[in-house]
Amino acid sequence: MLQEQKEILAMNRFDPEQSSALAPDVYRHVARRKASFGASSVLFYAQPIEMVRARGAYMFDAHGRRYLDLYNNVASVGHSHPLVVEAVSRQLDILNTHTRYLNEGIEAYAEELLNTFPDPLANLIMTCTGSEANDLALRIAQRKTNAKGVIVTRAAYHGNTAAVAEISPAGLRNRLPADHVKVIDAPDSRLAIHGDAALHFEQSVSTAIRELNSSGVGFCALIVDSIFSSDGIFSDPAGFLQIAVQKVQQANGLFIADEVQPGFGRTGDAMWGFMRHGVIPDIVTLGKPMGNGFPMGGVVSRPELIQNFCEETGYFNTFAGSPVAAAAGSAVLKVLKEEGLIANAATVGAYLKKGLMTLKQRYPSVGDIRGTGLFIGLDLIDPKNASPDPNFAGRIINALKENGILIGAAGRFGHTLKIRPPLCFSKEDADVFLEALDMTLALHLR
Amino acid sequence: MLQEQKEILAMNRFDPEQSSALAPDVYRHVARRKASFGASSVLFYAQPIEMVRARGAYMFDAHGRRYLDLYNNVASVGHSHPLVVEAVSRQLDILNTHTRYLNEGIEAYAEELLNTFPDPLANLIMTCTGSEANDLALRIAQRKTNAKGVIVTRAAYHGNTAAVAEISPAGLRNRLPADHVKVIDAPDSRLAIHGDAALHFEQSVSTAIRELNSSGVGFCALIVDSIFSSDGIFSDPAGFLQIAVQKVQQANGLFIADEVQPGFGRTGDAMWGFMRHGVIPDIVTLGKPMGNGFPMGGVVSRPELIQNFCEETGYFNTFAGSPVAAAAGSAVLKVLKEEGLIANAATVGAYLKKGLMTLKQRYPSVGDIRGTGLFIGLDLIDPKNASPDPNFAGRIINALKENGILIGAAGRFGHTLKIRPPLCFSKEDADVFLEALDMTLALHLR
Repeated sequence: MLQEQKEILAMNRFDPEQSSALAPDVYRHVARRKASFGASSVLFYAQPIEMVRARGAYMFDAHGRRYLDLYNNVASVGHSHPLVVEAVSRQLDILNTHTRYLNEGIEAYAEELLNTFPDPLANLIMTCTGSEANDLALRIAQRKTNAKGVIVTRAAYHGNTAAVAEISPAGLRNRLPADHVKVIDAPDSRLAIHGDAALHFEQSVSTAIRELNSSGVGFCALIVDSIFSSDGIFSDPAGFLQIAVQKVQQANGLFIADEVQPGFGRTGDAMWGFMRHGVIPDIVTLGKPMGNGFPMGGVVSRPELIQNFCEETGYFNTFAGSPVAAAAGSAVLKVLKEEGLIANAATVGAYLKKGLMTLKQRYPSVGDIRGTGLFIGLDLIDPKNASPDPNFAGRIINALKENGILIGAAGRFGHTLKIRPPLCFSKEDADVFLEALDMTLALHLR
Repeated sequence: MLQEQKEILAMNRFDPEQSSALAPDVYRHVARRKASFGASSVLFYAQPIEMVRARGAYMFDAHGRRYLDLYNNVASVGHSHPLVVEAVSRQLDILNTHTRYLNEGIEAYAEELLNTFPDPLANLIMTCTGSEANDLALRIAQRKTNAKGVIVTRAAYHGNTAAVAEISPAGLRNRLPADHVKVIDAPDSRLAIHGDAALHFEQSVSTAIRELNSSGVGFCALIVDSIFSSDGIFSDPAGFLQIAVQKVQQANGLFIADEVQPGFGRTGDAMWGFMRHGVIPDIVTLGKPMGNGFPMGGVVSRPELIQNFCEETGYFNTFAGSPVAAAAGSAVLKVLKEEGLIANAATVGAYLKKGLMTLKQRYPSVGDIRGTGLFIGLDLIDPKNASPDPNFAGRIINALKENGILIGAAGRFGHTLKIRPPLCFSKEDADVFLEALDMTLALHLR
């Protein structure tokens, strides 16, 4: 597993040891980045891009080159959406303060957002990031269950705080997970006995629960991103989470749905990823697309869980739930509705997937294609034995960038193209991408 | 200690059980807040304020009432400062994306910010909040020292993530600190043998280091906010941290300066609180005032510490270091400089402190007055025996609000008025406050 993880990390990045191959203007820029950010600096691509502007599904670099964005899911309703920009700018000029005063904006936003959740999930705590949301969710769950053990999938990523990094095997590099973390397979039907992902997943979860209980750590929660983004995108059949979630709740554990990736309509089926599976989580965490780039996240849960947590400790987050965050969040909900972006994700996503299936027939290096709405994973493989080919994925990603397409990779082996454009992505945009991918695959035979 | 903490928490808050005493419009608002945010909802004041607008050092409620703000240090260069609003609004419309692309704005901001730090502190990692910054600082320090033990002051607050909540005794309520956390007295000269705060603090630190080492936990770091904000504001004599920090570094531990409170010029003496003490931290954390309300924080450290951390794990923060955060941060640095706000903090702070000293002579319930620049603590005491009087502080805070003044409390016993206005606070504003405090103390005799 450790070797796999390294490959994922290496594949899509700029390698500082290759600086001599950079164009002079990029070289100077990279040197400045390195001087200020040191070893923490991570840049995309063999030749990093200096980005200067973005609008809708497109980004523009310092040379005026245009890129179709199939990577960045934060600007979910489109880069610099005018309605969101205007709402945030207006509110910044009026009032930007914390939640210890009453403010109509924050009350209205909370009501609007909570209206999109099933009944028992009636309370919201705002945070600034998805990492803070998952960190808080763990605290709530550990307090409720009086246990520490958490079950996560093999290449899961849930954020960057100390507590959340522990439950993110994708970021552990040379370390094994801590004792309170049980790592199980993603619900990949190819790994499953008789190809039944639901059953295989439920059995993995049950075994992990037993192990946590018998080791004395105790079982606290199962946390998953219901589209299994960093595991390589496993979306179907919708409903496959049901029997595992049932088992979790029967074992007095909590099911935490990390909606940072599938949430806010990306799957095209529903506002929230968990809804596709017909399950009701105990805790839901929100992040990236929530403010279209304004830093905000949140935890949604049942009132009794929030109450139980607050009896032990308080929670205050200075910037979270400001009138400006509320303005950003409300504008995002409005655009999603007015522009019919969930339906667009379904329609354009289906069109795109069909186009990718056609390419699969022509290129033996294209393996499995999975996903729903505007979140599709496409495996790149060695046709000889169908084994994952992350190096080939890396070459394709860099070549697509030269052809004006921004895209990333995911998955346990890092060989899955992660197709995840803003939700305003159109059929015409899909055609641009399909043509570019076709051309790139034709030129870069394995 | 537990009882003390409860008092701090209770003093300044709206008590939900007193809802029947609310005005009808406030009652409806509070009910909506409670319905959405549940037990996590915390509001200021016996009659919470519906805030609608703010500018400079003033905030305005839904009834058009004006409040002079001596509480909110986030809008540090003034509420809705036009230059910051404009910079953020402009950038939102152009590009709001992550740090994996190059962007002139983020390179320039990092250079500008790092220029304000002494030489070895040459690398920056951006986060979205001060909590994330402290969480990351702990991870960096624990990786470097291969030890877990952290020393904090008795009423310290360093944030809200799982890891950082553990080192925030102010938030623990009914719990004792974990085994890896050593809690020591704030550098209060009144607690010190011979009144020498420096020596007393150094001795407490040394004892804690010995205990951590002998218990097998190991010594990792001393973390302090160098103005000891939540401990009750201990600023003088400048330099008192030196011998303790020396001891920490001799013991192979790290000194982490949490600049969320004293940073960005508030002390009037320097850009950073640690500079007043003539010490060089190993790690500095930044938060609240950094973007004047735009959610941003950061960690500044020596390149080798960042490198050591990044060898074990990566750190990526989706929203942090966006071109919009850079625009906000740059605008704040520009305003600080162009409006001479650090010098203003020194001048107006000294004027204000002198005025408060005059009140102390007239009101025996005014005890010790401490602080520097625009961060002053004023103890409210029982004149009979000079004991802390948090209930009186609570009455004064609520009464000042009725007189158009926003102010909070701090300190181990919650009896310290925390005087911490935006840095654009003028002598005229100081006069308004002094007059209101005079009147309030005259009307509310103990």
